[in-house]
Formats: sequence, C-alpha cells, structure tokens
Amino acid sequence: MADPRFYSVAGPFNLKSIADISNASIGKGVDDQEFFYDVQTLSSAKKKHISFLDNKRYIDQFSRTSAGACLVHPDFINKAPDDISLLISDEPYRGYALVAAAFYPTLNMLNYQIGPKPIDDTAEIGENCKIASSAIISKKARIGNGCQIGANTVLGPGIILGKDCRIGANVTISYSIIGDRVCISSGTQIGQDGFGFAPGKDNHMKVPQLGRVIIGDDVDIGSNTSIDRGSGPDTVIGEGTKIDNLVQIAHNVKLGKYCFVVSQVGISGSTEIGDYAVLGGQAGIAGHLHIGDGARIGAKSGVMGDLKAGITVGGFPARPLKEWLRGIAMLRRIAIRKDK
Amino acid sequence: MADPRFYSVAGPFNLKSIADISNASIGKGVDDQEFFYDVQTLSSAKKKHISFLDNKRYIDQFSRTSAGACLVHPDFINKAPDDISLLISDEPYRGYALVAAAFYPTLNMLNYQIGPKPIDDTAEIGENCKIASSAIISKKARIGNGCQIGANTVLGPGIILGKDCRIGANVTISYSIIGDRVCISSGTQIGQDGFGFAPGKDNHMKVPQLGRVIIGDDVDIGSNTSIDRGSGPDTVIGEGTKIDNLVQIAHNVKLGKYCFVVSQVGISGSTEIGDYAVLGGQAGIAGHLHIGDGARIGAKSGVMGDLKAGITVGGFPARPLKEWLRGIAMLRRIAIRKDK
Amino acid sequence: MADPRFYSVAGPFNLKSIADISNASIGKGVDDQEFFYDVQTLSSAKKKHISFLDNKRYIDQFSRTSAGACLVHPDFINKAPDDISLLISDEPYRGYALVAAAFYPTLNMLNYQIGPKPIDDTAEIGENCKIASSAIISKKARIGNGCQIGANTVLGPGIILGKDCRIGANVTISYSIIGDRVCISSGTQIGQDGFGFAPGKDNHMKVPQLGRVIIGDDVDIGSNTSIDRGSGPDTVIGEGTKIDNLVQIAHNVKLGKYCFVVSQVGISGSTEIGDYAVLGGQAGIAGHLHIGDGARIGAKSGVMGDLKAGITVGGFPARPLKEWLRGIAMLRRIAIRKDK
Repeated sequence: MADPRFYSVAGPFNLKSIADISNASIGKGVDDQEFFYDVQTLSSAKKKHISFLDNKRYIDQFSRTSAGACLVHPDFINKAPDDISLLISDEPYRGYALVAAAFYPTLNMLNYQIGPKPIDDTAEIGENCKIASSAIISKKARIGNGCQIGANTVLGPGIILGKDCRIGANVTISYSIIGDRVCISSGTQIGQDGFGFAPGKDNHMKVPQLGRVIIGDDVDIGSNTSIDRGSGPDTVIGEGTKIDNLVQIAHNVKLGKYCFVVSQVGISGSTEIGDYAVLGGQAGIAGHLHIGDGARIGAKSGVMGDLKAGITVGGFPARPLKEWLRGIAMLRRIAIRKDK
Repeated sequence: MADPRFYSVAGPFNLKSIADISNASIGKGVDDQEFFYDVQTLSSAKKKHISFLDNKRYIDQFSRTSAGACLVHPDFINKAPDDISLLISDEPYRGYALVAAAFYPTLNMLNYQIGPKPIDDTAEIGENCKIASSAIISKKARIGNGCQIGANTVLGPGIILGKDCRIGANVTISYSIIGDRVCISSGTQIGQDGFGFAPGKDNHMKVPQLGRVIIGDDVDIGSNTSIDRGSGPDTVIGEGTKIDNLVQIAHNVKLGKYCFVVSQVGISGSTEIGDYAVLGGQAGIAGHLHIGDGARIGAKSGVMGDLKAGITVGGFPARPLKEWLRGIAMLRRIAIRKDK
Repeated sequence: MADPRFYSVAGPFNLKSIADISNASIGKGVDDQEFFYDVQTLSSAKKKHISFLDNKRYIDQFSRTSAGACLVHPDFINKAPDDISLLISDEPYRGYALVAAAFYPTLNMLNYQIGPKPIDDTAEIGENCKIASSAIISKKARIGNGCQIGANTVLGPGIILGKDCRIGANVTISYSIIGDRVCISSGTQIGQDGFGFAPGKDNHMKVPQLGRVIIGDDVDIGSNTSIDRGSGPDTVIGEGTKIDNLVQIAHNVKLGKYCFVVSQVGISGSTEIGDYAVLGGQAGIAGHLHIGDGARIGAKSGVMGDLKAGITVGGFPARPLKEWLRGIAMLRRIAIRKDK
C-alpha cells in the first residue's frame, strides 16, 4: 500500500461500492459484498487489493497477478487468472482513477506548513544543521545531522533527508526519502504529481499518484530539475548518480547507480536505466523502456527502444553510434554533390 | 486596451508627441495635434489607437485595420487603408516599443507585496482556502473559495484564481486570470514578460508586454513550466488542457481545449493550437503557426509549418509519420549495407 | 585566485602534503617542502599555484603553463615545461578535486542569510530600491540604486547588483557580479555549482567550482533559466544579450554581447560564443567550442563543432543551412517516391 508516512488510506469498500465508484460491471459469480482495502499495481497487489489492466504491455502481469479484484476491458477477460474478481469496464484506467481517489480522498490536500512558524513543532531536525531564512519544514519531516537547507526552500510533510545533505534555495521536496550527502541545487522540484491522466472526451481525469521519490546516498542534482514521484511504484535515483540542470524525470523512472544525466535530458515514465549509464545533454528517452548498464546515449539523441548494456547510441531515433554517423556522412556527401 | 486590472495607461498624447517619442515622421496631410489614447494590435485597434506593422505576415491586417494611426516602414505605405495617419519609420517595431513604454510608464515596476504582511489587505480570499507559510498574495488579487496555495508561492497584484485551485510551492503567478479547479505544480512561473525585443546594433529594445495569461477551467500544469503573458493579445490555455513539467509556452500562444503537452515541449510565440492536440515530449513548434484540432505531434519532433487537423507527424522537420519513418528506415538500410 | 568576495582560501600547503591529499607521487628532483598557496587553471596559474592537466585538448597550455606545480598523468610528463614540479597521478582530475577541496574547505557551506532578519545588516542597499516581501539579501551583498527585488527571491552573500536592475520572484543569485539595468525573470537560478565531477568506479567526485557569474549591462534573462558559475574561470554573459526561458548555460561559458538565446537552448561547458550570435529555440551546443560573431544557429539544431563568424546552420548535427535543407528535401523525395 501507499507509504503511510505520506498517504492516509480510507475504506475498506465492498466490491459493490467499488463497481459503483468506477462505473464498472461485476464479473459473473463474484461476491459483491467482499471488502477491499487498497489499490495496487498488478505486480504488487495481494488478495485484498484492487488492481487494473490498462496497457497491453502488462497482459502478462495481469495473467499472473495475485490481486483479489481487477478493473479490465472486456477484450482481456479471457487472460484473467483464476480466482480473481473482475470489474469490467470500457475505461479501466478511468475506473482505477476513480477508485484510487476514493481510497485516498485527502491526496490532493496540500499539506505544507501553515501559519507563522516556518518549522513545524513535530519536525525532527538533526544536530549541526544550518537552516536559512524562510525555509519551510512541514510536519513530521525528518532532517539528518549536518544538513544545510537553503533560503525559501520548502520541505513537505514526512519527507526524510539523510545526514550531511545540502539543499539550495527555492527548492521544493515532498513525498521523498533521501539518503546521505545528497546535494540538490536551487530551484529544483522533487516529489510533485506525475503526468498521469485517463484521457476522455469531456475531461482528462487525473490519476492519483501514490508513490514516492527515493534518492540514494551521494546523489547530486542540479538546478531547475523536476523529479515526479511515482504513481504507485516509486521513482528511484540510485546512489552516486549525478543529474544536471533542467532535467525531467517522470513518474516511476528507475535510474541506476553512478549514472550521469546531463542538462535538459528527459526520461519518460516507467523507464528503467541501469548503473553507470551516461545520458548526454537534451537526450530524450521514451517511456516503459529498459536501458542496460553502462549504456551511453549521445547528446540530443532520441531513444525509442530498449538498449542493451554497454552500447553507445546517437541520433534520433537513436542508433548505434557508428551507424548513425555513417548515415549522416552519406546524406552530407549526396547533398554536397548535388550542390556542384 | 490593456486590462486595467493589471495596467495603468498614461496619455493621451498627440500625434506630434508620438512621432517625437518614436523617431517617426508624420505622413502627408495628417493632423499632428490629434490625440491618441492607447496602443493596440492591427486587428483590434480602433480610431483613437496607435498600431504598428512590423512583420510582412500581417500586411493584410494592416490594409484592413481600423487603427487611427500606424507606425509603418516606408516600403509598405502603399498598403495602408484610407483615413489612417501614418507614422513612417525605418524601425517601426522599435518605434512601437517606445510609444508603448510612454503609454505604460509604470509597466516595469514590480508590484509584488512589500512589507511584513504576506497577504495584502486589499486581496480577496474566498472561503475555506488553505494558504501555506510565506505565500505572498499581492494587492487586489482575488482567490476563489476552496483554493490551496503552496508555501513560498507568490501571487501578483490583481490576479484572479477561480475556485478549488491547487497551487504548489515556489510558484509565481502574475498578470493572469485563472479558472476553476486548476492545478499548478511547484516551481512553475506564469505571466512574466514574453521574449519581445526590437533588435538594434547598439541595443535590443525591450517591447512592453501588455497582455495577460488566461487559463481555462480544469487545466493542470506541471513543475518548472514557463508561461509568458501576451504582448498585447493574451496567452490562452483552453479548458481541460494538461501541461507537463519544464514546458515553454511563449507570448500570445493559443492552446486549445483538452490538449496534452508533454514535458520539455516548446511552443513559440503567437502559434495557435486546436483542441485535443497531443504534443510529445521535447517537441518544438515554431512561431506564428496554426496547428489543427486533434493533431498529434511526435516526441522530439520540430514543427516548422502549419498542420491540418487530425494529422500525425514526427521528426525534424516534422513530416507525416509514415513518411518520416520511411525516410529513417531507408537511411538505416543504406548505412548498414555499407557496413558489410 | 578565486574571488575573495565569495571564497576563503586555506593553506598554504607544502608539496608533500599536496601529494598526500591527491594520492599523487612527486616527480624526480622536486623540493617537496615548497609551499603552494592556491589552485589555478593552466593558463592563469603562477609560480606558487597548483594546476592540473586532464583533457588532451589542453596539452598545449600545459607545455606553456607558468604553474609552479601540476597534477598530470604519467603519459604526458614529457610535455611538461621546464622548472615545473610534477605531481604524477593516474587520475589527475580527481587529484585536483581533492587539492581544491583542501584549499577551499568551506566551499560547500551554504551561506545564505540565517535567522529572522531577511536582509543582513552588512548588506548594502542603494537608494530608491523596492524590495518585496520575503526577499532574502545575505551578508555583504551590494544592491545598486533603483533596483527592484521580487518576492521570495534569494540573493547570496557578496553578490553585486548594478543600478536599476529588476529581479522577479523566486529567483536565486549567488557568486555573481551583475551590471546595470539587468532584468531577470521569475524562477531563474544563477551562480550554483557547475556540473563538474571526476568520474570513478565507486564514486564520482565533485570538483570544487571556484568561479563566478559575470553579467554585463542591459542583459535580460527569462524565467526558469539556469546559469552555473564557472569552475575556476568565470561564466560570462556579454552586455545587451537577451536570454529566454528554460535556457541552460553551463560553467565557463562565455556568451558575447547583444546575442539572442531563445527558449530551451543548452550551451555546454567552456563553449565561447561571439557577439550578435542568435541561437534558436531548443538548440544545443556541445562543450569547448568556439562560435564566431554573428553566427545564426537554427532552432532545435545540435552544434558539434566550431562555427565561423556569420554562418547560418541548422539540423543535427548542425550544417550550413542550405546543405541541411537540401539533405532533408532529398530524403523526403525518396521517401515519397517509394510510397507510390
């Protein structure tokens, strides 16, 4: 379930209520009075959880899920595991958004510190910390020894900072658990909602974002960078990874250890990147990809498929470096020749 | 005229003064004692307004304008409508910048809240609002019922927020009128000056930016995004549109309803985008274009011309998706063949 | 040496200590008791300074350096000038990082204003300044006459602002010296650490950033832009240059006078750009390049080599505009033909 440090779960709801909330019909032979206690992804759901299948990419996970109930499109009913209670819907992702909002009704309540005291009485501040003027530390935040917090920086409720972290000015951090010796430069925003919507003709419905941002030890993050929290799974930055300015890291991204991510890179949702990867400036990586350990992605390249470990790629769409360079050279030769 | 909620107009000035201010010469047979009360774009100017023609793209508007007077390059005098008073200049855009600055002399005065009170006495705050520590609400701002305002967020004078809006931390909003249920994530900046300069050898002159940002109901905006206010016309975001992190929306952009704009997209000045358009991550759209309803623009593509409704494009320069993919496949085949 | 306005140097250290700190071995015939007083780049180091050679690109500077001692890889010893004391290391850049950290032990101490007074008593504020609520002005900062400072903006210790500057809300400025009539929009971050790390298997070591940001008169900078300070040399923005939103300017960049830098451009470290250059939106420039005066770099192009003055380029990799357009046209013709 969502981390109770950050989220309060409501419920339980019985299946009848959940079907009503999500505009779904209940599958045959299902006990509609059974109670459910939370929402979960297909891979982590248990017996008393509601899950959903939205993306064909996850049919396999659907067939093996331990979820007690699942929102699913009529087309995929035949892929369901035994013993699951089906909630059948033409729009299972919208249905999920509605059910998740019911389980987490206070999710969209901003809970930053309110009132004239910038540091809440319930915040735990370690020894030898240096906290600049107008820094806001919200309730139950926990700041390790030796941390420095810049002016006008905002730390949301419940966040955890390890020891000897250095946070610049005008930073916002919420829904995050951060290791030791992490440096975050000015103007960076961490832990806000990911870009998750169930599209619809008359409105695109916001999907509750119930994960966290987990940042390892010795990570360094530049200025004006955005790291969204996970939608259910977490967004994870591995230890020792170095991230530059104006970088976009979307929800559920897993970034390995000791990577370099240069300025203005964008990593789309749910992509997983191995250890020691290097991402050149302005590179973009599509969503739901696997990038192997030590992959090197050239500046400004656009990665549209999985990359195996150790490969070097360039261009858009990104290809093995030599192939990309050869294509460019060829095009150039022809263009120059025609010039004569 | 510029919205008096945000701008105080000076004047009137007679044509003789305006010619002096703008280093223009007055056309033949013009009454140089006539008074003018404001500057306006060609399409919205009336009899007592000064306008300007700078970009050939707008000659047609010039020929049909109802402006009483207009700054114009000598080359285009013959396109003028009857009855207009011409102000002839080799640099009409610089001339306009000087005249606009004369009409709006206090434009560049920052007018955020000053003093120890973070919320001005003249601000109107609705019922059941939640305002976090160190949020600044400037004079005559109007905040609807049920709004939440994050810590260290700055709301400029006169801005209007509808009801049930949720504004994150470290946000700045000025010169803006915002609908109901709008969510804006941390670190986003809305309503600042657009990038408008009249170039010159010894200095590039800042052109006064006299428009607003108008945001419809149910819009969602991510973190570290920039939305500049209009230069005279407004910058407009249609209802239900969802905008991700680190997006650039330049002055005078009109973005339709229910669009998706993914992270790190850039939309250049005065471009108009229809309803239900989808802009993939890191896509860039040149200025002064028309993008039809439902157009789908692939991630990282660069759009350099108008797009018709419903089209799907990719690549740089952006082409119909199939054509782009075919070109890529071809280049790849040749490059691999030469490898053998 | 690093500007004492911003940095306090420790030491001196004798060569024996410096070799221990940097895990280097001392070259033959060197007096290991000689004292050194600072670190410096190859081109500006003098007799009592320690320098380093890391990048082959700088071998020439190494051969002519006046540095008294230098960290160097064994492979390049034979390129050393006479009379230099060599510190031999397989990882000279890491060695430098360790020595620089020893000379500047308080570098990573955030020194923003602390305590309830937002403006430090030692800050000098000129006449007729307008300082909005919750603006933080740290010790020994110097603000010229007629400046306007936005709400929740943070000015670091020792920074200098010329007269009649206009700084928006939620801006951070540190380690910077800024001219007259400079405008900086909301959410922009200036002077933070550059992205400098000495890579290593078990950790990437942060290299102390000891330079400043120097901004000329009449510069205009948009919102959410990042300008890192130099690593030793300064980052420099020439007078009259106009920079848009969400732009990345890395450490040691020299940007000429009267340039235009459009939104979402990225300029990599140590690149030098001449006067009157125009960089289109989303363009990227690799590091260590020289871009001539008046060069015009098309939107979204990727510049991977030096550009001569006055050239116009487009595409990725960037080529002379006509050549790029010809290549595109050709590719398009073939792709369309195959369609039939």
